[in-house]
Amino acid sequence: MNLKIAVLPGDGIGPEVILQAKKALHAIGEVYNHEFVFEEALMGAVAIDKTGNPLPEQTLNLCLNTDAVLFGAIGDPKYDNNPNAKVRPEQGLLKLRKELGLFANIRPIKPYKALVEASPLKREIIEGADFTIFRELTGGAYFGAKTLNEEGTHASDLCEYSEEEITRIAHLAFKSAQNRRKKLTMVDKANVLETSRLWRKVVQKVGESYPDVLLDFLFVDNAAMQIILNPKQFDVILTENLFGDILSDEASVITGSIGLLASASLGEKNALFEPIHGSYPQAKGKNIANPIASILSAAMLLEHFGLFTEANVIYKAIEKAIEYKVVTVDLKPDSKFGTNEVGEFVSNFI
Amino acid sequence: MNLKIAVLPGDGIGPEVILQAKKALHAIGEVYNHEFVFEEALMGAVAIDKTGNPLPEQTLNLCLNTDAVLFGAIGDPKYDNNPNAKVRPEQGLLKLRKELGLFANIRPIKPYKALVEASPLKREIIEGADFTIFRELTGGAYFGAKTLNEEGTHASDLCEYSEEEITRIAHLAFKSAQNRRKKLTMVDKANVLETSRLWRKVVQKVGESYPDVLLDFLFVDNAAMQIILNPKQFDVILTENLFGDILSDEASVITGSIGLLASASLGEKNALFEPIHGSYPQAKGKNIANPIASILSAAMLLEHFGLFTEANVIYKAIEKAIEYKVVTVDLKPDSKFGTNEVGEFVSNFI
Ligand SMILES: CC(C)[C@H](C(=O)O)[C@@H](O)C(=O)O
Ligand SMILES: CC(C)[C@H](C(=O)O)[C@@H](O)C(=O)O
Repeated sequence: MNLKIAVLPGDGIGPEVILQAKKALHAIGEVYNHEFVFEEALMGAVAIDKTGNPLPEQTLNLCLNTDAVLFGAIGDPKYDNNPNAKVRPEQGLLKLRKELGLFANIRPIKPYKALVEASPLKREIIEGADFTIFRELTGGAYFGAKTLNEEGTHASDLCEYSEEEITRIAHLAFKSAQNRRKKLTMVDKANVLETSRLWRKVVQKVGESYPDVLLDFLFVDNAAMQIILNPKQFDVILTENLFGDILSDEASVITGSIGLLASASLGEKNALFEPIHGSYPQAKGKNIANPIASILSAAMLLEHFGLFTEANVIYKAIEKAIEYKVVTVDLKPDSKFGTNEVGEFVSNFI
Repeated sequence: MNLKIAVLPGDGIGPEVILQAKKALHAIGEVYNHEFVFEEALMGAVAIDKTGNPLPEQTLNLCLNTDAVLFGAIGDPKYDNNPNAKVRPEQGLLKLRKELGLFANIRPIKPYKALVEASPLKREIIEGADFTIFRELTGGAYFGAKTLNEEGTHASDLCEYSEEEITRIAHLAFKSAQNRRKKLTMVDKANVLETSRLWRKVVQKVGESYPDVLLDFLFVDNAAMQIILNPKQFDVILTENLFGDILSDEASVITGSIGLLASASLGEKNALFEPIHGSYPQAKGKNIANPIASILSAAMLLEHFGLFTEANVIYKAIEKAIEYKVVTVDLKPDSKFGTNEVGEFVSNFI
């Protein structure tokens, strides 16, 4: 197979972890005779520094015209603590999601056996947990109108959803549930928010076409609690953009490290793969960032193109790295292995 | 001291747990020679059933003219799963918060020594954790304009904040931090939301008057993770309404049961005390609901009026109940004690 892949390393630890993902894909290409052509481009704080624009035209055009996008991380503290900054790195990622129509962000959560002890949760709570979060990615408060009055004393964010936006991701989530344990939990705040009530109504309606899937509902406050109290109760979780952002970072604790979680962002035509962790600026350049999430996002990319054997080889390699404790310090505080060594191990194993 | 207390039992398990709180206050009154006069009123689903209004005029007037409000719980599944319901129980609580100007909701989180094992988190993670969440309670998406178009295919919720709304709760949170370990963590999503950027700016400004308090910032997704990974890092958390709702329910897992957490909602003139748990309709009338959160909210009420000795007696009594394992099934699955027995134990101990 020939694949043209846009690579956006982004900020902070992005470039370091992306490098390991590329190495893994390169090894897969060699062994299984695929041609992966990578083309790098700027996005995020690094793009602002060089061009003034967090998503330069050139980057967007590249992404629109490749088979898939592999993305590292975004964000820089120099913007976070400046509420008056006019341009922000995150705008690049949000614009890219919107322009590529990546409405569904899929985040699988499943602890590795060898890592059960790394979680702050007790073994009996997490052993056997296995669920996937479907987070809506191009709507809600992320994209609604924002206002700030002239005096800078009053601000607003609008959260909006349409039936259509909810329907399309609901279908994906129900289909995924059909291929799993046939349970879908919709998370919302329908006792307070109008958008949540619309979500509830639309998801109920879509659910009629999936009578084999058990549909239930949780308020987001309760869900935030249940994910920790009893993560095994979940199979597929479906939720809106901001709730999905919060709950999926929270759910990462089940696996012991957010450095282990990857995600796929899918649209009608395009697909982007990224770790769910952020740019972790404190770790930049120190060879301590966990590359596994980034390598896993490469595996999700392979699956997306039907290359299941190849993806499985990567999953196996990662399991081995974890088994042999070739992991970064987030998983083993006294580890002598860094980003490079873990990436090396994985690609050598392929 | 003479106190006139409005009692709103509300829905589900509300009436059962409120009864135990009243028993405890009654016992305190006897021993310490205070006169607590309780007046009950309707709010929530039960008020809709009887009057068509989740917050009848009479209830509101009572609450406006008492020293404090003791509230049970709100919510009924018959409304939750009907996205078209015109009147909802929660509207009663939200209106009451707004009309009483209860802008600050204060939720202390601290595990009981004897209950460390009840948490899904490992002992070493939670032992020593002790923080308080300051949740803004009368602004944000809870109270902004809501729309649903005529066809019922498009909905919106507006999240709004003003400098003034942020300033007043920020002062309370900083003052609390000054009396604690002098650290305040502001939680927001300033990399995406305009309201969050306003929060960050205003809180930074207010912080200048509290140079002894260390101020830091976390994005809400990261905060949802950090609360589980390392709850000991927090002293005072300050956040907006919806984030506070989510994070405080989540944080309840540190204590082992949401049935242990109470909260105070404060305004300029009024104060309301309530458990943070919901109406838990499945448990209604079964004598299994944990009354501790409700009894604790009565203790917070006493503290609010400077009755610290009295509040401490209640805290002690609850500690004893927990030590002797006179607790409900949420804390000890094979417990033979119910709501009444736990409440009885506490008031007898006073
Ligand atoms: C960087 C930020 C804008 C982003 C988000 O909130 O979507 C990140 O937290 C994520 O989850 O991908
Ligand atoms: C019942 C509901 C409206 C309420 C809220 O979301 O504020 C509850 O969850 C709470 O936290 O007090």
